[in-house]
Amino acid sequence: MDWKPNRYEEKPLYKQITDYMKTKIERGEWGYDTKIPSQRDLASHFNVNRSTIVSALQDLIAEGYVEGEHGGGTKVTYGKWEKQSPLPNWNAYIEKGSHYPNQPFIQKINQYEFEKDLIRLGTGELSADLLPKKLFQQLMSSADETDFHLGYSEPKGDLQLREAISKRLREKEIYTTPSSILIVSGALQAIQLLSLSLLERSARILVERPSYLYSVNALQSAGIKLIGIERSINKPLSIEKVEKLKNRFDLSLFYVNPTFHNPTGALMGEDERKALVKNSIRMGLPIIEDSAYEDLWIDKKPPLPLKSYDKSGQVLYLGTMSKLVSPGLRIGWVVGQEGVIERLADTKMQTDYGSSTVSQYVAKRWMLSEQYEEHSAYVRKMLKKRRDFMQFLLECYFSHLATWSIPKGGFYIWIVFHFRLNFDKLFKKGVEKGILIAPGHIYDRLDRTSLRLSYSYASLEEMEKGLRILAELIEKEMISKKM
Amino acid sequence: MDWKPNRYEEKPLYKQITDYMKTKIERGEWGYDTKIPSQRDLASHFNVNRSTIVSALQDLIAEGYVEGEHGGGTKVTYGKWEKQSPLPNWNAYIEKGSHYPNQPFIQKINQYEFEKDLIRLGTGELSADLLPKKLFQQLMSSADETDFHLGYSEPKGDLQLREAISKRLREKEIYTTPSSILIVSGALQAIQLLSLSLLERSARILVERPSYLYSVNALQSAGIKLIGIERSINKPLSIEKVEKLKNRFDLSLFYVNPTFHNPTGALMGEDERKALVKNSIRMGLPIIEDSAYEDLWIDKKPPLPLKSYDKSGQVLYLGTMSKLVSPGLRIGWVVGQEGVIERLADTKMQTDYGSSTVSQYVAKRWMLSEQYEEHSAYVRKMLKKRRDFMQFLLECYFSHLATWSIPKGGFYIWIVFHFRLNFDKLFKKGVEKGILIAPGHIYDRLDRTSLRLSYSYASLEEMEKGLRILAELIEKEMISKKM
Repeated sequence: MDWKPNRYEEKPLYKQITDYMKTKIERGEWGYDTKIPSQRDLASHFNVNRSTIVSALQDLIAEGYVEGEHGGGTKVTYGKWEKQSPLPNWNAYIEKGSHYPNQPFIQKINQYEFEKDLIRLGTGELSADLLPKKLFQQLMSSADETDFHLGYSEPKGDLQLREAISKRLREKEIYTTPSSILIVSGALQAIQLLSLSLLERSARILVERPSYLYSVNALQSAGIKLIGIERSINKPLSIEKVEKLKNRFDLSLFYVNPTFHNPTGALMGEDERKALVKNSIRMGLPIIEDSAYEDLWIDKKPPLPLKSYDKSGQVLYLGTMSKLVSPGLRIGWVVGQEGVIERLADTKMQTDYGSSTVSQYVAKRWMLSEQYEEHSAYVRKMLKKRRDFMQFLLECYFSHLATWSIPKGGFYIWIVFHFRLNFDKLFKKGVEKGILIAPGHIYDRLDRTSLRLSYSYASLEEMEKGLRILAELIEKEMISKKM
Repeated sequence: MDWKPNRYEEKPLYKQITDYMKTKIERGEWGYDTKIPSQRDLASHFNVNRSTIVSALQDLIAEGYVEGEHGGGTKVTYGKWEKQSPLPNWNAYIEKGSHYPNQPFIQKINQYEFEKDLIRLGTGELSADLLPKKLFQQLMSSADETDFHLGYSEPKGDLQLREAISKRLREKEIYTTPSSILIVSGALQAIQLLSLSLLERSARILVERPSYLYSVNALQSAGIKLIGIERSINKPLSIEKVEKLKNRFDLSLFYVNPTFHNPTGALMGEDERKALVKNSIRMGLPIIEDSAYEDLWIDKKPPLPLKSYDKSGQVLYLGTMSKLVSPGLRIGWVVGQEGVIERLADTKMQTDYGSSTVSQYVAKRWMLSEQYEEHSAYVRKMLKKRRDFMQFLLECYFSHLATWSIPKGGFYIWIVFHFRLNFDKLFKKGVEKGILIAPGHIYDRLDRTSLRLSYSYASLEEMEKGLRILAELIEKEMISKKM
């Protein structure tokens, strides 16, 4: 609901709310049998007293729009008297869909990020003031009629953008022609496309644990099982263990996030990378390399991507503009064997007919612009400041409660507490106190002790306040009551 | 392949081609066992003589990069001597993916539309000169830093855009709050989202036959069966027949394209619409109304959309900016019960994290711009001219071969021949003669006699030439040889 009652109107607040809800019901936006949000939620959403909501609901009940339930909820009953005609029961449809809904925590996070004014301690994006808005505005305003078009995009995406990406990739020693590159609407779409195009419904793929992949259902909804390999931030990947799992589960792919891992911040060393590529070829276990955070190094350039050591097409490489430049642009790319890229492009054409040409145009201009390097350097500098500050705050507030490692790049610090956390309670209390957190079990369903902290989004001031509130909450709620 | 040899270089053409192909193979873009395109296709693609290709391939064979096959093809064998290490065999993956590949015809059409300079007689988009490129450039160049952002979009899409859409929908007597609207990347994505979110894998949905839906595999790939109801352009929909099919197949939804149907151009009358909505409520068969062509009326405004007669949330309404304004923008919307919209938004967040904010920004500005009406009127005027001209050409060249109805809007004329067409041959010969056609069985797998003609894309001059070539081809190839 985006509407709010207006305090300056003559009509009383409760009446405004009654009328709004009536309209929603009469138009079928809230269908028969729809559960109305709780009085508490409605009061909070409309920013009114609970008694105002009670008055509004009483009116609706009296006029036959809704009915109270035994459990305490309220349901839409408008249209009940037309019982001869079965009213559309979309609820049954919603439950039947094959794509899993987001985890409730993520649904809430997605919602609160836009609805509430909370300090976002776990958000995986750059703060708005670090995004090159001014530069983008300039790129857009100098859009030239001759090289800008409004028609459909070609299946693999704009050729000039693919050429620009191919050029940028050479800096990382990845050599590829544009015909082996597919433009996608962000790396997440790449994951969906490959889950639909390259894997059968019973396939199993290997994933580091914890992993960002557990926080989205793109693979699971396509019937694909994730097999986790536990990863320690400080120990190299055990090839032996990978091989054991490969044989035991007949694994199809290995999804890896070798550079500034989401959520742990871990960085794979050069030898580890070489060994992984070599052995993945030997074992016949192709790799999906998610390089989302690769350019966000802080202390020094990371080793070359896995893809640079691959001359056989073993590695499918995912890149994105979301982390360094603009999440809203929705531009990413996949690099791989031409046949694979063509299959993915074909599925993409059936899914959304290609990515926005306006986005692709701006992305291309950005890739070729002189500000590209300058902006990257600026973001790195700011991330260093932010990371160091968060590290300082963690030392102040959390050293007796938890442990963590200092990441060499990316957005995240994975903080592991000395005791179990009650995530439900912590999340809820956090929202009440004005902070939004990312509980560890979003990234590893078995996790009960960790949080993903991000130093990329909140301002330094918010970071200080937010982490202080978090430490207090944990001390008060999680330790004193031994939960 | 986007690369072409350069005639002005000193290096001979065949050598340039050998080197290019070697590089592709060495880098793994063409992996072990990849089938190389035929000599004929390579010659045509690189725009050289077949003998040049033969020389290039001979070199590659001599150096062990490729090998000739018994069947006449050529396969990559580079890396064969490293037999101890199983080379990545992506071909096996490509075949296993659960999403169906496009029909070969559509793959070819997608490819030829960008690669070859053909007269496109079936393309479902406006000619580039009818798109408001200049106006969009102005909208972009006046992008204001304060209301333009680069961060992620909220789950349902930009609120101001949804408000603008809600306002425009009132003109069609669809009344809805922005919270019951979801922004999608084109109507095709809406279909994918609903197939993943609202339907189980064994679900069956009703579809008019022929239908655009048969040309994409979004639903079929999600395990959903399409049950066709044959539609005549001039006869109203039989509710009785719908009901019979509903009971027989336990149908979940009815996907309808009531206004300027793709591909037949059919238009449902007002009474027919009212009866359909009323009966769909009675039967408990919710409707997906695809309104893609609604604003492209030529002679007079069509009846109101089905959604305007629905007060119970029975109808899910799909709209798009692709047909009237810009296909490349990838902006569409779904209007429905709030709970349904929320479920779709949740799936969308897991699929691509929302549509491009740059596209949404430009779309919003367009919706609110003063040029909106003016542009629509202009496109209608031009479509009338184009439709009338195509009608004239059909009378000239096809009156003895086929029948068709004159559409009152949209892009298409569905032309039905008096005899069977050999689509494979006609398509191939057409490409040789410089025309690209859309065979009827793309839209109805049983069809053997029809083509979808479009008067929206080709210029008047091209239309004349293209249709003349088509008529000649059909007379020569399809009649004289009685195929």
